[in-house]
Amino acid sequence: MAADIAEQPAGYARLLEGRYAEAIAAVAGTVARRRPRHVVFAGRGTSDHAALYGAYLTEIRLGIPVGLASPSTITLYGARPDLSDALVIGVSQSGGSPDLTGVLTVARETGALTLAVTNHPDSALSQVAELAIDVAAGHERAVAATKTYTAELLALLLLIEGVRSGDGAVPSQERSALSELPNLAETVLADRGADDLAQRYRFASRMVTTGRGYAYPTARETALKLMETSYLPALAFSGADLLHGPVAMTDPDVPVLAMVGAGPGGAAMADVVARLGERRADVVTVGPADVAGAAGRLRVPAVDERYAPLLDILPMQKLALALALARGEDPDTPRGLNKVTTTL
Amino acid sequence: MAADIAEQPAGYARLLEGRYAEAIAAVAGTVARRRPRHVVFAGRGTSDHAALYGAYLTEIRLGIPVGLASPSTITLYGARPDLSDALVIGVSQSGGSPDLTGVLTVARETGALTLAVTNHPDSALSQVAELAIDVAAGHERAVAATKTYTAELLALLLLIEGVRSGDGAVPSQERSALSELPNLAETVLADRGADDLAQRYRFASRMVTTGRGYAYPTARETALKLMETSYLPALAFSGADLLHGPVAMTDPDVPVLAMVGAGPGGAAMADVVARLGERRADVVTVGPADVAGAAGRLRVPAVDERYAPLLDILPMQKLALALALARGEDPDTPRGLNKVTTTL
Repeated sequence: MAADIAEQPAGYARLLEGRYAEAIAAVAGTVARRRPRHVVFAGRGTSDHAALYGAYLTEIRLGIPVGLASPSTITLYGARPDLSDALVIGVSQSGGSPDLTGVLTVARETGALTLAVTNHPDSALSQVAELAIDVAAGHERAVAATKTYTAELLALLLLIEGVRSGDGAVPSQERSALSELPNLAETVLADRGADDLAQRYRFASRMVTTGRGYAYPTARETALKLMETSYLPALAFSGADLLHGPVAMTDPDVPVLAMVGAGPGGAAMADVVARLGERRADVVTVGPADVAGAAGRLRVPAVDERYAPLLDILPMQKLALALALARGEDPDTPRGLNKVTTTL
Repeated sequence: MAADIAEQPAGYARLLEGRYAEAIAAVAGTVARRRPRHVVFAGRGTSDHAALYGAYLTEIRLGIPVGLASPSTITLYGARPDLSDALVIGVSQSGGSPDLTGVLTVARETGALTLAVTNHPDSALSQVAELAIDVAAGHERAVAATKTYTAELLALLLLIEGVRSGDGAVPSQERSALSELPNLAETVLADRGADDLAQRYRFASRMVTTGRGYAYPTARETALKLMETSYLPALAFSGADLLHGPVAMTDPDVPVLAMVGAGPGGAAMADVVARLGERRADVVTVGPADVAGAAGRLRVPAVDERYAPLLDILPMQKLALALALARGEDPDTPRGLNKVTTTL
């Protein structure tokens, strides 16, 4: 898991240049020409969090309404939604999940433009889809997905910015900003804050993670990593939903990890962190600036909120790894998990 | 909270007959005539779980693709998705949440057909929407929503079956089956199983809830009720997602509540319960039949899976109430919560 985590800056560099970037631009150009009226994402587990990031990008950057598929409506109940104006995107590390393959098969039959985003270009999902993107993360050794998650995020960002430009190519100003990501990711990974924080949570019995907007998928993925590797019950909430009930559950014994970036999503979190502080919750933020009410902060550089998910998750992955080790667990072989999950 | 819970059978009877049913049929007829190409639901907290139920119904019963709105894309990031072919449904007990009002306002401006489903027909949400449904649950005394949740579920069921019929009226065969719900709900509420189960969980430090398809919203809502009233960290997963990672977290100390109804969603849970049993998790099912691998069961009658969410949640509400009392908490005034949450 440590090796997978460490490879992410190189993974960013690989996707940003050369044949992988060109392949994504070609797919983006096709999508732009087909002008989908709405977009449906389908994913499970970690890839569902990448799909959620793609959903925010699609609504905000493209102004196209988005849905997140519930595969069971198709695979269990036989629904045949009319997807003739839709782009349906299946996101899966392995590309081997039968429920996603089922969704893309039905979508293609009903006239949707279908796209598979996977780390396995020869997978079943890539084969049933009309279009495919290889996130090119290389072989992932650990069961807990890390580098495939961030590769999915970046591939979706390149896809959607390419669709936005109209011809599939990411505009040069954006490319220039993105080219800093590998170095920024190296800097974030070199920081020891997450390792120190693992000591603080050694005896925590549960965790809450939260974020809004682009940062909400990071909160969800952080919670999943903590559950997979440290077996710690970790609850992820959008900052808005947190105030609709779950805030009652927070108290000084519940550590909260809050994603507070530089932008509208981060700004909307200020009130959430303040409310948590009133309840004397132990809040640690992830972001570029200190937040009133928080007990500590993991430092990440200030970037456009669209890019923050590519950096904020890195200390969270390191935290999940360090916490598992501190608790005497083996993060490379989580109990009860397989790399490919074959739910229908 | 006990009084609110007890009023649900009467609430079902009220919605199923007379002027409320007629009002819903009129709205359904308008929706059917406008033939939306896709549907977007927006809700927060408990109402988001009702919206999720509506999403399953829409895809399965109407064959129309569905999205669940992330209000922050509009309210924080200023997205203006083109919703001209869409029906956008805001679900809110109070109708007073500014983020949902913002979503429906933008949706109406961009040409969507908009519908507010609330317990307050004079609310801001009802006023900004072109169409409105009153779920007619009466004044809800407790902060934790119970009778407004099930009223939202039933209103959405009547709406969607009315749209399906083409003229807004629920077909007589379906009406006849639905007319049994008030009595069935009385029977379920009279069962003492949930009260006994509260003793079993008195010292639990966390819970997991799970279900698939139509039963997944019940799992989500159960977890929220447990968090709101007993401050117990409760994690809800679709049965499929549970096997993608969180299953690692389950062990004999984690009680699992699994919704296992009679139908495709319930059948797909058999494997999930078996996997949990292998991990020696303490599984209690909610449903009409015993399930291999489970330690116990709360009994609810066998009904069409579409109706099960209207019954399965009842013992879960009773459990949340009884567990809060057993733990010395006051379920009527949960710490840190207000009845109307005004996130932007």
